[in-house]
Amino acid sequence: MELTSCLPIWKELTPTQQQRLSAAAVDRHLPKGTTIHRGSLDCTGLLLVQSGQLRAYILSGDGREITIYRLIDGDVCLFSAACVLRDIQFEVSIEAEKDTQVWVIPPEVYRELTEESVIAANYTSELLASRFSEVMWLLEQILWRSFDKRLAEFLLQESALEESPALSITHERIALHLGTAREVVTRMLRYFQSEGLVKLSRGCVELTAPKRLAQLALPD
Amino acid sequence: MELTSCLPIWKELTPTQQQRLSAAAVDRHLPKGTTIHRGSLDCTGLLLVQSGQLRAYILSGDGREITIYRLIDGDVCLFSAACVLRDIQFEVSIEAEKDTQVWVIPPEVYRELTEESVIAANYTSELLASRFSEVMWLLEQILWRSFDKRLAEFLLQESALEESPALSITHERIALHLGTAREVVTRMLRYFQSEGLVKLSRGCVELTAPKRLAQLALPD
Repeated sequence: MELTSCLPIWKELTPTQQQRLSAAAVDRHLPKGTTIHRGSLDCTGLLLVQSGQLRAYILSGDGREITIYRLIDGDVCLFSAACVLRDIQFEVSIEAEKDTQVWVIPPEVYRELTEESVIAANYTSELLASRFSEVMWLLEQILWRSFDKRLAEFLLQESALEESPALSITHERIALHLGTAREVVTRMLRYFQSEGLVKLSRGCVELTAPKRLAQLALPD
Repeated sequence: MELTSCLPIWKELTPTQQQRLSAAAVDRHLPKGTTIHRGSLDCTGLLLVQSGQLRAYILSGDGREITIYRLIDGDVCLFSAACVLRDIQFEVSIEAEKDTQVWVIPPEVYRELTEESVIAANYTSELLASRFSEVMWLLEQILWRSFDKRLAEFLLQESALEESPALSITHERIALHLGTAREVVTRMLRYFQSEGLVKLSRGCVELTAPKRLAQLALPD
């Protein structure tokens, strides 16, 4: 995917700004499983996803995780350039969940752009606002939604991303996504199985009644 | 407090922009208890707190609440101007917790400013990044911190804001701040009382051993 179509504000930039971005952007392949960014240890730059899938997550002191959002084709990852933003005081890690192709715009190049271009500065606000909205949604889910509904929704989302009713995913991995313990996931999946919603086998969860799962995922 | 000292970017704006803001800003008094902003129902504008205290919170469908942050003298509230920001898809409400004096900058005036001034656009990003950091902190607390520590920290923070060890606050109100049920708060406060950390009386929580409370609030 061309850089010009990955960055939504491309056409609004000046020819000089476009040339500077073109010259600085790096086309990079991230094999599945690569951790591209580790909180404030790194300042990788702005990532423009050409294809594949990235996962942004936070880590607790004792190694627990929760997925805060995912990025797919055409999405832009700002937190990998967190050093550009004053006042960001939290640590997001980013890994490739699938083989992923990205454009990397170095942090100093993006900083320079936001300092001179009102278009780029407002675009940064938009990106922040949109990620902020995802995190607020997550917060509301955690506070006010029961775990069975969250798990049902996660399985449906996963199945849509994989375009398959059979998911190759461990209970451990689901627990990391949802910020809970493996046992909690196993218990609820067994309950789902007893209700005929899923079929469990080693490393695999098969959605056998997606419509009923979707019904379960609805708000009360 | 003058408008010129409430807005950190004031000196970097052009004389024309300053005049436009001066002419449009409204000096407003909010008596304690006023709800100034209700999610997407309102677009009040940018609020610059001269004195007093505002509370930003979210509401669940069935009326539960959680405080996401507080704003005091010199703070700027952006979510009351959420209509200015594309891609904000969540609902924050704002109320005055004390008698509060604010400058209100109408949303259309602030929008115009961010569209023409790279300084204002980057300032908006900074505000977003800083509130985002507070919400990420809250998310981590809820996910990974036990309730006794959260309650201890809340009481200490409250005591610092009130400049008093005796807090006039109901268990219900504490529950709304922390996004939990009143019973959970009452149970933990009684435990704190049995440990000699607080003394409870009707509508009042007195911190009797703040140092030990601070110890309890420390991360594991």
